[in-house]
Amino acid sequence: MSLCPGIDGARLWASLMSLAEIGATAGGGVTRLALDDDDRRARDLFVRWCRDAGCTVRVDAVGNLFARRAGRDAAAAVVMTGSHLDTQPGGGRFDGAYGVMAGLEVLRTLHDAGIDTAAAIELVAWSNEEGTRFAPSMMGSMAYAGLIDAAQVLDTRDSAGRRYGDELARIGCAGQGLGGDAIAAYFEAHIEQGPVLEARGATIGAVTGGQGQRWYDLRLLGSAAHAGSTPMAGRRDALLGAARVIEAARRIASAHDEGRVTVGQLHVVPNSRNVVPGEVRMTLDIRHPDDRVRNAMDEALQAAVHAAAAAEGLQLTIERVLDQPAAAFDAACIARVRDAARREGYSQLDIVSGAAHDAVAIARIAPVGMIFVPCAGGISHNEAESATPADLAAGCQVLLRALLGACGHPAAQAPRSTPTLAEASTP
Amino acid sequence: MSLCPGIDGARLWASLMSLAEIGATAGGGVTRLALDDDDRRARDLFVRWCRDAGCTVRVDAVGNLFARRAGRDAAAAVVMTGSHLDTQPGGGRFDGAYGVMAGLEVLRTLHDAGIDTAAAIELVAWSNEEGTRFAPSMMGSMAYAGLIDAAQVLDTRDSAGRRYGDELARIGCAGQGLGGDAIAAYFEAHIEQGPVLEARGATIGAVTGGQGQRWYDLRLLGSAAHAGSTPMAGRRDALLGAARVIEAARRIASAHDEGRVTVGQLHVVPNSRNVVPGEVRMTLDIRHPDDRVRNAMDEALQAAVHAAAAAEGLQLTIERVLDQPAAAFDAACIARVRDAARREGYSQLDIVSGAAHDAVAIARIAPVGMIFVPCAGGISHNEAESATPADLAAGCQVLLRALLGACGHPAAQAPRSTPTLAEASTP
Repeated sequence: MSLCPGIDGARLWASLMSLAEIGATAGGGVTRLALDDDDRRARDLFVRWCRDAGCTVRVDAVGNLFARRAGRDAAAAVVMTGSHLDTQPGGGRFDGAYGVMAGLEVLRTLHDAGIDTAAAIELVAWSNEEGTRFAPSMMGSMAYAGLIDAAQVLDTRDSAGRRYGDELARIGCAGQGLGGDAIAAYFEAHIEQGPVLEARGATIGAVTGGQGQRWYDLRLLGSAAHAGSTPMAGRRDALLGAARVIEAARRIASAHDEGRVTVGQLHVVPNSRNVVPGEVRMTLDIRHPDDRVRNAMDEALQAAVHAAAAAEGLQLTIERVLDQPAAAFDAACIARVRDAARREGYSQLDIVSGAAHDAVAIARIAPVGMIFVPCAGGISHNEAESATPADLAAGCQVLLRALLGACGHPAAQAPRSTPTLAEASTP
Repeated sequence: MSLCPGIDGARLWASLMSLAEIGATAGGGVTRLALDDDDRRARDLFVRWCRDAGCTVRVDAVGNLFARRAGRDAAAAVVMTGSHLDTQPGGGRFDGAYGVMAGLEVLRTLHDAGIDTAAAIELVAWSNEEGTRFAPSMMGSMAYAGLIDAAQVLDTRDSAGRRYGDELARIGCAGQGLGGDAIAAYFEAHIEQGPVLEARGATIGAVTGGQGQRWYDLRLLGSAAHAGSTPMAGRRDALLGAARVIEAARRIASAHDEGRVTVGQLHVVPNSRNVVPGEVRMTLDIRHPDDRVRNAMDEALQAAVHAAAAAEGLQLTIERVLDQPAAAFDAACIARVRDAARREGYSQLDIVSGAAHDAVAIARIAPVGMIFVPCAGGISHNEAESATPADLAAGCQVLLRALLGACGHPAAQAPRSTPTLAEASTP
């Protein structure tokens, strides 16, 4: 009986730290926006590493990178894993990067151990998951899943007016084709980006699904006026309206267990210290694991937004830019994650993802599972994002077992051969 | 007995419209920021027009432009008028520009009529009144009055890091010397920038003083976090703290008759739609005609700001960047304005300036008066800023009489010789 190989936790950590040097910030984080020069460098490193691990690499029409480890049976549906290489502005070293580097570490381990599988295994680096530079988020995986048009993706422009398609060509990642492969299973490893695993003392989160989310763009139009000579009673202050929306967002989210509402982006016009703001553009991000509750939160928010605008005499424009229902992951995939964690002896619990992930998009076209590991204080989208080498190694080992299991390889149920795992170097 | 000459309202209006073409916006306003290329063009036009009206022009160390009409008595203290050529971003055609063009129209009228005065008359275009690009506002007049250091002015940088002194040299306005002249009287004509004259049906406001103002820069530091996975209870959202400050500003200002508090500028970091804001930088502008009331408002605001920060667990930095006490203008100058309006038969009322003006700085070193004319809806610092040719001509005629009066010229008390005034062309 073939034993299950153990991934190399120290090598995984070293890969993560090398990757984090690309776009590193002074504060210990990473700024690597989709299709910028650092994203290009990260992609180039990914391609080189994957080829060194025996994979062939291709890029599709929207810039998703696929590293394929061939299987014995060319007709078998592919088993996939992956995540993303782009980050938030001033983001952390692990969001996205971990899922890609964990997949790479699995490929390297299988390569070193000489294990072959019936199905091919593909590691994907999805393009533009964060959506910070080009909105919306998860563009690459959504296009792959047929949820948005490739043409729409390519025509998206950043705030400087640069076109996604042009930037993709600029960094040498404008490929051919999009989706269409039969996928046996897709697994994604990710830091939790929330505080639950740490608070409960669990190493592995078996993710049962993703909460739904809805995004709005709001525009409040008042009247710019002189800060000294305009009486308070006569003002139509767009920023005051925005302030009331922000307070309503907190109040409504807090009133719904597990509800989350965020105003993350806000621009003031003309943004001059002695001018009453005439215009505010802002965003609303509404999430809940239960779509009915999310809809109720949304209705309450809409009412609050209209009331805030009316009270200050503001013109209001609301545009919905994303509407993603809650996603339930595949029972068999979830069971594989639980089983892998149990066999490795890691503490685990079932968890709903608060964040959106590429896995949520892929869940629309394939059986999906996710593996969460703890991050310090639940902090993410922040330079201070932190996770331990041991936890990251544990998640990677679970990923390896889940992928082997989906390939029908017996090693997925076997004892582990090597003990290099949890003794990863400390940061 | 020499008659009082009448200014040419149509010529005044034409000058204003020509000037408004420099930095004109699509929305009918003007963006002409201090020391930018359009400011340079406006300055060049000012210099040419003043020379054509028989004046000599000089520029001082901080970029203030002085156009001098010589008097008979070289020892007599100068009589001054002026305002500024720079505008807010997306500002109007009259704020500042009117005071300079009205002064020019007076000089042209005296030139055409061949009137000579004992004292020299100087028309000043103060540098950087708005303070939008280089803070604080009224830099040129404050430096002239000795309220801030010339070296400090020259070393001020804009948000792109460009130095005031370097930009001044770039536009050819780095001159020599600063202040020191004995000033017999200073008058400034300006649109009211508030609704009082229009609401009361008065053509001329005899300004009795300026309300005090205090400016703060606030920095609220929370923790950037993932919008999906961070529970509401664990957030330290800098923008929520800011929203509570904005609401407190409205509440406290409204509770004090004639009080004004404005949050005009606000920046969110990282300003990404799916990240809880980790940092907000914002401004506070606090004004009241009575310094004791303004201090009480300030105290209430400070308490509210600290409470908002504490409630959300935010670190708070407050920096005071301007503190200008209320200013009472000179009784004799105010009387000259009232007298001029009465002789011309214009309806008038006494008024306190809600806005800060160069005149408020000059009031620290010289007898000062101001002349307000109505603007539509009290709207200013806005592209929609509007004033009628007839009102603008009336204010200019009052300015002419006030200046002649301060020069001791008998025409100030004489009937007007020409009827070209109120029949100015309509826009």
